[in-house]
Amino acid sequence: MKKWLIGIDIGGTYIRICLGKLIQKKHGVRHVDRKILSSRKGQEPRRSINEIKVSVNQLLKAHQLHTKMLCGIGIAVAGAIDSEKGIILKSPNLKKWEGFGFQKSLSRFFQVPVYVENDANASALGEKHFGLGRKKKNFLYVTVSTGIGAGLVINGALVRGKAGTAGEMGHMTVQPNGYSCKCGKNGCLEAYASGTAIGNLVKRVLRKEGRSRFWKKFQRAEVTGKMVTQASLKGDRIAIKARKEAAEYLGIGLSSVINLLNPERIILGGGVLEVPQHFWGPMINRIRKESWPTAFKSCQILRSKLGKHVGDWGSFAIILERLS
Amino acid sequence: MKKWLIGIDIGGTYIRICLGKLIQKKHGVRHVDRKILSSRKGQEPRRSINEIKVSVNQLLKAHQLHTKMLCGIGIAVAGAIDSEKGIILKSPNLKKWEGFGFQKSLSRFFQVPVYVENDANASALGEKHFGLGRKKKNFLYVTVSTGIGAGLVINGALVRGKAGTAGEMGHMTVQPNGYSCKCGKNGCLEAYASGTAIGNLVKRVLRKEGRSRFWKKFQRAEVTGKMVTQASLKGDRIAIKARKEAAEYLGIGLSSVINLLNPERIILGGGVLEVPQHFWGPMINRIRKESWPTAFKSCQILRSKLGKHVGDWGSFAIILERLS
Repeated sequence: MKKWLIGIDIGGTYIRICLGKLIQKKHGVRHVDRKILSSRKGQEPRRSINEIKVSVNQLLKAHQLHTKMLCGIGIAVAGAIDSEKGIILKSPNLKKWEGFGFQKSLSRFFQVPVYVENDANASALGEKHFGLGRKKKNFLYVTVSTGIGAGLVINGALVRGKAGTAGEMGHMTVQPNGYSCKCGKNGCLEAYASGTAIGNLVKRVLRKEGRSRFWKKFQRAEVTGKMVTQASLKGDRIAIKARKEAAEYLGIGLSSVINLLNPERIILGGGVLEVPQHFWGPMINRIRKESWPTAFKSCQILRSKLGKHVGDWGSFAIILERLS
Repeated sequence: MKKWLIGIDIGGTYIRICLGKLIQKKHGVRHVDRKILSSRKGQEPRRSINEIKVSVNQLLKAHQLHTKMLCGIGIAVAGAIDSEKGIILKSPNLKKWEGFGFQKSLSRFFQVPVYVENDANASALGEKHFGLGRKKKNFLYVTVSTGIGAGLVINGALVRGKAGTAGEMGHMTVQPNGYSCKCGKNGCLEAYASGTAIGNLVKRVLRKEGRSRFWKKFQRAEVTGKMVTQASLKGDRIAIKARKEAAEYLGIGLSSVINLLNPERIILGGGVLEVPQHFWGPMINRIRKESWPTAFKSCQILRSKLGKHVGDWGSFAIILERLS
């Protein structure tokens, strides 16, 4: 009986390997076990793949399973993916992986089908199969973390685009000729509403105005989005203002997507929204102001319930999507 | 043999009724005849529908055809459409038509299937079946005229969205808190890059700077996008600058869509782009600057070849889309 799944989430810092089991009755998957490897930036992909092979075998052995009992391996990777060929076209965090055929290497080794998707797309599939995207035909999953990315499901199917780069919502322009983004462009949503951007907003104010009580103990260069969230909860004026400004820009970006695609749901994940105070309200108000009324009314905007493990569920969902 | 089609394009000013014939070998349609009615703003839709019925019968009679020989009637209408129920949900130019069941009325009268789509969506289908969208899985048709609208084809299928409003590209925000748009919002693409917006840009400059040689003979209120195009061809500095500025904003809006959807083609129609000088170049340059390099490389940006008759072809394509 092929009813076991291996999901692998390859990020810039960690490689998460998960073991899941199909529950036929509920059309679901039970998350059975997990192993976490360091993905050591700059390490040769061949070496990482060997470590993955060892870890998968350890997981299988620990649960007395054989590869013949696997229905597939699903891999989520940050970057532009050719999911037909199973290669990474472009990935800022995994430069050495570009063009490397790890899909072939793994499918030959384990003799099971291996499927690869971009990580935001995988998360959207995670929502489609296990989360708030269930039975929804038109929705997007947006992650607002150190960066901003999205996975789109339209007419019931994942949108990959011509070259596998669809969903680069973080690089929609929200302020022409605005702040520079790490992608090299200016005025990107990511440069205004990501965790990094929120940190930068505070740094800019501190440079101009000097430090308020909360920020006295920190070096300016240290400021992160997480610290800004903490400061805002303690009532720091600069932090609250920065979070609100970022929320408004996220609202502008989401409104453009609502006007363009008229989705029925937007599912938001990522660290920036973990604390809704000083963010959720201003964001929704801005969306209400900027979006087409009929489109706004037909769109539910919700926090993901898959939380931090959306990546695990995403890697399982990659397999389910191909099985169905 | 059911091989005849009636296409109807209901606009704010005219109703165009076209007769077409299927050419099986080429999977195409021959445009046989056409009738144009005034749609008289504010006229009761029942009256317009009666006029349409009379005109369709006249067309059929003139070509010695019977309704039994029709495979369908396709109707393109400006506004948000519920294409399942065949009703207009919202249409700024056809207020009295909202909620009116003209699809039922026509299908009962002629005893043939009647299909209704939003006009920009119909144009995208026109491109899919007869134009530059043939055999393309991911493309959009964008019309830049007095307003800006788009029709999207993703994974080979039209994107209607949850409430039928998908494609409202003209109301993506390109300049937060920017110029007011006739929709009530601020900073919409339509308020920066449409023909109307180009006219307004010139008006604003004339108000500030006074009139240059070209503009001496006109009242400021008279200035239209078309006049600005004419002036730009005569070398008028103000007109050239306005066209270039609009082109850059269109480039920003298109880049956001390229980053989000990674389409393989963008097909541009509408009056503003009929004269490419001082527009096409600045637009492409801005797109190159603002869009994700992999996505930009995989996307062809082209002028529609269906020209002014894209609406006719669109209304035929509505039927073909349902037949296939």
